[in-house]
This record gives sequence, structure tokens and C-alpha cells, in this order.
Amino acid sequence: MKANRIHNFNPGPAALPLSVLEEIQENFLDFKGSGMSITEISHRSKQFDAVINDAMARTKRLLNLDDRFQVLFIQGGASMQFCMIPMNFLADDKSADYVDTGTWSTKAVKEAQIQDKPIKVVASSADKNYAYIPRDIRFNEEAAFVHLTSNNTIKGTQWSNFPDTGAVPILCDMSSDIMSRPLDCNKFGLIYAGAQKNAGPAGVCLVIIRDDMLERVPENVPTMLKYSTYAAKNSMYNTPPCFAIYTVDLVLKWLEETIGGLDKMAALNRDKADLLYDLIDGSDFYRATAQNDSRSLMNVTFRLPDENLEQQFVQQALENGLGGLKGHRSVGGCRASIYNAASLESVKALTDFMMSFENKNG
Amino acid sequence: MKANRIHNFNPGPAALPLSVLEEIQENFLDFKGSGMSITEISHRSKQFDAVINDAMARTKRLLNLDDRFQVLFIQGGASMQFCMIPMNFLADDKSADYVDTGTWSTKAVKEAQIQDKPIKVVASSADKNYAYIPRDIRFNEEAAFVHLTSNNTIKGTQWSNFPDTGAVPILCDMSSDIMSRPLDCNKFGLIYAGAQKNAGPAGVCLVIIRDDMLERVPENVPTMLKYSTYAAKNSMYNTPPCFAIYTVDLVLKWLEETIGGLDKMAALNRDKADLLYDLIDGSDFYRATAQNDSRSLMNVTFRLPDENLEQQFVQQALENGLGGLKGHRSVGGCRASIYNAASLESVKALTDFMMSFENKNG
Repeated sequence: MKANRIHNFNPGPAALPLSVLEEIQENFLDFKGSGMSITEISHRSKQFDAVINDAMARTKRLLNLDDRFQVLFIQGGASMQFCMIPMNFLADDKSADYVDTGTWSTKAVKEAQIQDKPIKVVASSADKNYAYIPRDIRFNEEAAFVHLTSNNTIKGTQWSNFPDTGAVPILCDMSSDIMSRPLDCNKFGLIYAGAQKNAGPAGVCLVIIRDDMLERVPENVPTMLKYSTYAAKNSMYNTPPCFAIYTVDLVLKWLEETIGGLDKMAALNRDKADLLYDLIDGSDFYRATAQNDSRSLMNVTFRLPDENLEQQFVQQALENGLGGLKGHRSVGGCRASIYNAASLESVKALTDFMMSFENKNG
Repeated sequence: MKANRIHNFNPGPAALPLSVLEEIQENFLDFKGSGMSITEISHRSKQFDAVINDAMARTKRLLNLDDRFQVLFIQGGASMQFCMIPMNFLADDKSADYVDTGTWSTKAVKEAQIQDKPIKVVASSADKNYAYIPRDIRFNEEAAFVHLTSNNTIKGTQWSNFPDTGAVPILCDMSSDIMSRPLDCNKFGLIYAGAQKNAGPAGVCLVIIRDDMLERVPENVPTMLKYSTYAAKNSMYNTPPCFAIYTVDLVLKWLEETIGGLDKMAALNRDKADLLYDLIDGSDFYRATAQNDSRSLMNVTFRLPDENLEQQFVQQALENGLGGLKGHRSVGGCRASIYNAASLESVKALTDFMMSFENKNG
């Protein structure tokens, strides 16, 4: 680890590849010979056009999206998507199926309900504090869409495979695992992801939309809340969050050119998660909170024998250069978020620390 | 001008103070000893709390806001405000008065109309291609609010004084002149400004709201579109655009500590604008497009004898290190945007170039 940098296990905003940060830093006063910072150039300039188009093209290549899909950049995070989805796709008061796998899917449900949309929660893992991903769900054939959260940052669970929803498109919040593994785009009508976990900094949401979903958007939705506005204007109806999109582009370039694509990224992510889960499963001191078949490869949530030890664990980890290990305030415990940019080296430093902490306190 | 940097007259995103850019660059890999970039730290951390609270406190001090006002940071730019305003303040189908001074106010009107709100356009300068600010307007006493655009980036006009609207609060888009002069907050119920002109980079909108306006927000508005959500959660209901807010904070620090406050900034802005308008008024070659009493101190719009010369002007200016002088594509001509961070030195370089160009081509 470079001098002054810590091993960053933050749940989001989260670690970014050091090479990306260094490239931003190096070019910060003069972007590509423009004589301006990336924060000062016009979004209508040739230079920025190249950035946003490159970010869109890399997204399509990395996720193997076919020509039916378009990449959009929207502000407001995944939380804004929770309200845009019912506005854009349930205007005719059709119903939709939602699966509730914890905090973020619960919020998505709530935003549809605020708009008085007749949605159905067809499955939930609330009965076991969201420690698992529901199986064998009965979806409604007449639903406008099925809404899922692919990875549950707070509960530490993840869909390892997506369910068969027949002809009904899946609309999926992939904020915390987009770009962490290859994608079969055929199941999806819409994918969205706040960038600040696997794809960039806070301040932009990556949205992937299929053309038939665009056709469903009604006319009378406010301009900034219509997916069709972003699709028609290459995400520049108004000034986009230029710096955030630029950083996303650099992260995607790193994924393609340094990592070598999503198959390789997925293998590396599997190795990282295995290191942690193997240690936890082999220990009587640490205990994983998610059920075995539902475990997230992105957010490893675990408990120690008591809360006092958990506090000491988080504190001593930080003193040893390992940051961001506190569980979400709503659930407590510990959590290691090991998104794409968290290196194998960082995870090894963490497992070393965990073994040493157990030896001293176990 | 530092090597490789140009004189930047972009209309937005626009020039930022060089010292701000240098501070960002210097600390980009390790923010305040955290061992993380500002793009990697948690928005729930002590470090980021200090940033966002400092930005709010500086905004209140600079604009001399009293305790009735709260500072919010919202994504989506001014365009998102165009739709949030009717959603939050016209839920009961009350009417509001809008003044149409060109492109951006026209869009604000359109977004209220999309929502079927019974608003009234009580004044417009459309009859003279928006070259002036309307005077002696009759406002409706029963209006929920009056909406104004304080500075019209594209048309080059600006309200030098705000009208008397009695007890009706003014809701004002100050995207292109916020922080350029002192403010008398008493007239305003809501002020909003996309940061990318006078206050920071693209990706965050600075919103100032008075407590009585917050009380008007209805319950059934989507969470991310309610002003009360941001007010209750210190603008962190969900992950805010951390980097953009950090940069705004540094720009506000520069305004307070380097410039010395908004009285001084206003005097400097007046000097910059005078240099340009004096040159234009003393020339038969250049012609200002805005009426004398309505001229913007932020965006100086002007024409040359013909479009061919205008093209040459913009091109040769760029070759001489003066960027961003092309008028908006909807109106043509030339425009020098001289926001806070455009230095007197840059404006002098521009007037020198303008005199030389006139001598060669006049």
C-alpha cells in the first residue's frame, strides 16, 4: 500500500483504483491539452463528447449489451430511480412485482406506494431479517415488470442467479454489484446503479435501458424525470455531472485494459470473497450473518462474539490501516465491502488482521 | 496565466479559481490524512460532515442569510428545480406568477405546465428577443410565489434590482449569478443555482429555502423530490455528490478568504464588465445585444459586423489562449462569460485581443 493510503473497505463511496486517481490528479489542471480542468470544460465540447461516448461504449462492451440497449447517466442516485421507475412505467396503473430483500428494495417499494401504484410484493426475506434471497417465487404474468435488488449492501446477500420471469422484464438495482461479474442482458428491461460502489464516485447513476421500455414512457412526466429525455439527448439535456462521468469512464477503462474484462474481474472477486468467508467459516469467533447460498461477494457481513469486541475490532483495524469495517448503523456488526477496486492485497491484509485479532481476543 | 492554462470564458461549466484546483489536486490521493481520496470517503464520515457543514455555513455567511433559511444540496441542476418547484408549492393547484426572460425561464414555465399547474406568465420580454428585463410588472397578490431568473446566461440580461412583490415570496433561479454580489434575502422564499457557473463544478445545485416554504411541502411527493427530505437529513438522505460539494466548499472559502466577501466580489465583477462594455460601446465594430439598463455583468453578449467575422473571432481568440467565446447555439454571435473566477487579467487579455481584432478587420 502506497504511503498514506489505507486499505479501504467502505460500503460506498468506496475505494477507487489508485491508477485512476493518479490519472485524474496528474491531468487535473489541464485536461487533454484543453488548458482547462475537466471541471471547467464545456459539456458541449469535443473533449467532453469523447469522454461520455467512451463511457457509454465501454459500458456496452463490458456488459455485452446488444443494440436494444442504451446507456444513460442520471443524477440523484438509485433513490431517484426508485421514484422514476413507477412514474415512467406504471402510468396506466398497471401493476408490477417487487421482491423485498432488505433496506434498498424496501425503499423502492415505498416510492411506488407514495405514488399510489398498485404494486405487489411477491416475495420477501423479512421473516429472517433479510439473511437470504427468496427462491421459487411466483411472479404475475401480467405484471409490467419485476423489480429486484441484485446485491444487498446492508444485509450482505446477493442474487447469484436471476429468476426466470418469463416475458416480464426485470428492472434491477445493481448499485452494489454492477461490473463485478458478466451479465446476461436478455432478462433485463432496465438496470441502474449508483456509481459510488463499483463504477466511480458519488454523483452519477449509470442506467441501462432497453428500447421497448423507452417506448412505454408517457408524455406528461416532467422532462428531467423521463428516461426518454436522457435517451434522446445523449444524457445531456442539461449539464451532466461531468467529473463523475469522467471518473466512471476511467474506472471502466481500468476494468477493460488493466483487469481484462468482467470474467477476470469476477474470478478475482470470487477469490477475495473466498478468503474472507473461508476464514469466517473456519472460526468460532467470527460468524457470517447471511445464509450460505445467499452470500454477497461484494459485502461480507459478520459478527463477533459481542458488541464490545466489534467496536474494538473496527477501531484497531483502523489503527492498522484498514478502514470502513463498521456494519451499517441499522444492523450493527461488521462489514467488509470488497468491491472491484478493493485489491486482493487489501483483503489479505484484512484476513491477517482478523486472525491476529482472534488470537488476542478469542 | 500559468503555462498550459487558457483564459476561460465558458458559460458553464466554467472557470474555477486556480488555487481551488491546485488544492484539490494536491490532496487528491489523501484527503486530510484519511488515507483516502475525497472521492472515496464515506458521506457518513466525520471528514465529510465537516465539508458539507462548512459549505452550508459559508453560504449563509456570504449571502447574509438569517435563521429562517436553510442551505440544501440537490442533484439534477436547475432543470430539476423547474419541476420540483410546482410539485412542492403548487400541490393545491394554487396559481403562481412567472416572468419569462428567455430560455431558462421559458423552461421553468414549461415544467409547471407539464404538471398542469395553473400558472400565469405575468411579464415577458419575448417581443424583443429577450433583450431586456421587464419593468413595472403587475403581480397577483394571491399568487403562491413569483418565479424569476436573475441572470439570463444566453440572452445576456440580468435583474439589477428585484421587483417589489409585496407579501408574495420570490423563487429565483440564480444559477448564473449567485455569489456574484451581495443578497438581500428578505424577498426570497427559495433560491437555487446549478453550481457550475459561479459556485463550483457541474453535478450539484445549491438551494436556499425559507422555513415557511418548507411547511408548504405536501406529504405525497416522492422522497427525492421533496425539499423537506433534504432539509430533514442535512442533504444526506442518500449519498450526496461528495466531490462537487467539496469543490463548492473550496470555492466559497476562496470567496471569503481570498476575495474578501461579496461586496468585494461585486466590485471586481463590475470592473470586469465595465472593461468589456466600455470597449463595445466605444466601437462601431462590436455591438452589445442586451439593452443598456438590462445588461448582465456575468455574460456579455455581443455581435460583430457579420457571422463570418464572428467565426474568425472565436477561432483566432482560441488560438490566442482565449476560450469559450462562442454565443449559445440558439442565438449565435459571441459571448464572454465572466463569472467570479474569470480574473481581471483574463478580461484584460480579452479586451486587448478585441482591439487588435478590430484593428485588423474593422
